[in-house]
Amino acid sequence: MTEIDVRQKVLAANAAAAEALRNAFREAGTLVVNLISSPGSGKTTLLEATARALRDRLRLGALDGDIATERDAERLRRQGIPARQILTGGACHLDARQIEKALAEENGRLSGLDVLFIENVGNLICPTSYDLGEDFKVVLLSVTEGDDKPFKYPAIFARAAVTVVTKADLLEHVDFDLDAVREQVAALNPSGTFLTTSSRTGAGMAGWFALLEKSLAGKRESLAPAVR
Amino acid sequence: MTEIDVRQKVLAANAAAAEALRNAFREAGTLVVNLISSPGSGKTTLLEATARALRDRLRLGALDGDIATERDAERLRRQGIPARQILTGGACHLDARQIEKALAEENGRLSGLDVLFIENVGNLICPTSYDLGEDFKVVLLSVTEGDDKPFKYPAIFARAAVTVVTKADLLEHVDFDLDAVREQVAALNPSGTFLTTSSRTGAGMAGWFALLEKSLAGKRESLAPAVR
Repeated sequence: MTEIDVRQKVLAANAAAAEALRNAFREAGTLVVNLISSPGSGKTTLLEATARALRDRLRLGALDGDIATERDAERLRRQGIPARQILTGGACHLDARQIEKALAEENGRLSGLDVLFIENVGNLICPTSYDLGEDFKVVLLSVTEGDDKPFKYPAIFARAAVTVVTKADLLEHVDFDLDAVREQVAALNPSGTFLTTSSRTGAGMAGWFALLEKSLAGKRESLAPAVR
Repeated sequence: MTEIDVRQKVLAANAAAAEALRNAFREAGTLVVNLISSPGSGKTTLLEATARALRDRLRLGALDGDIATERDAERLRRQGIPARQILTGGACHLDARQIEKALAEENGRLSGLDVLFIENVGNLICPTSYDLGEDFKVVLLSVTEGDDKPFKYPAIFARAAVTVVTKADLLEHVDFDLDAVREQVAALNPSGTFLTTSSRTGAGMAGWFALLEKSLAGKRESLAPAVR
């Protein structure tokens, strides 16, 4: 078996596991969102703010992928939502079987949710190819990372249904051309949604919360039996 | 062949190519520095400032790894140093054979240098395991990425001889405990060097330039034939 054969086999096994997850999430009516970004773009901080805003009216939960430390899941549990850390054993992305195993080991504590957030390992490349049974991927890009990133990492910006620019409160302190980023994302992903946010000041967060609620409502509606 | 067998075979082939590179760099008396960080931590910006400061007294050159775009090599060429972009074809790190091939294709334009910088693909995980024949690895961490990163990505902070904290000019605008980062790095890598810099204001940059010059002098000295 060559390196390419092995990779194809791994991706095929992942696709099968992801399909089983997707069916289970559909049956449960759970919206699943796979968050991907560089290390330190603000995935956990976005989810902390989301938990505070929505936990009283939606059942939220999270799976947090990392190479090491339980820190991210702990941060989310402190915001009152169930969260489980998945340590990948050095791998630069989560895969569908890890999600399956983590959910099984939670014995129902991450079942029956309205929204399950999957916070992937901090990496703009590896997580792109691994379907986790999610409804859609979200890519985060902080304004401190530079405005050249969509074209440098085109696969994830093309595949993520939603791009969230984070740390907008720092815009005045850095060279970051927001319009240039918007144009790159539009070229890679014409049908994608583009949001600009600051978890710190709250700017733009209403748009993110509305997107989640609308996506959940859309999924539930599509699942409802047709009625005359 | 299992997935693990394939990975071991790939790493063994890389190690052999890296050893050949290391011998060639020793013969040429070239110091080789492998820079690794998340996307957007400021590798290219650090190298731009380094080129401006040192190009008049040292022969500098660079290889720039990316998934897509020639942008980083172009930025460095604008600072008057030879630079070649290596596009990895989707891979999340450079490998020794890509370095070998790029140097050969440059037909001597990247030979006979005092210092060759290898700017790896923006990624804190994948580049860690791939020896490129370098004298040492440098890991960059920008203050906007958060002070939890060394323990979340321990392998690279343990293996890099030098940690460079970047964008220190933004410290007053973010929550970043520099002492906490210093302690994590010291725990992972007790003999490592820890620098705090701002390419924008120039703060701390003299320490970085001095480290390069001292490393180059040390390498040249170790290569000189013993004289009574």
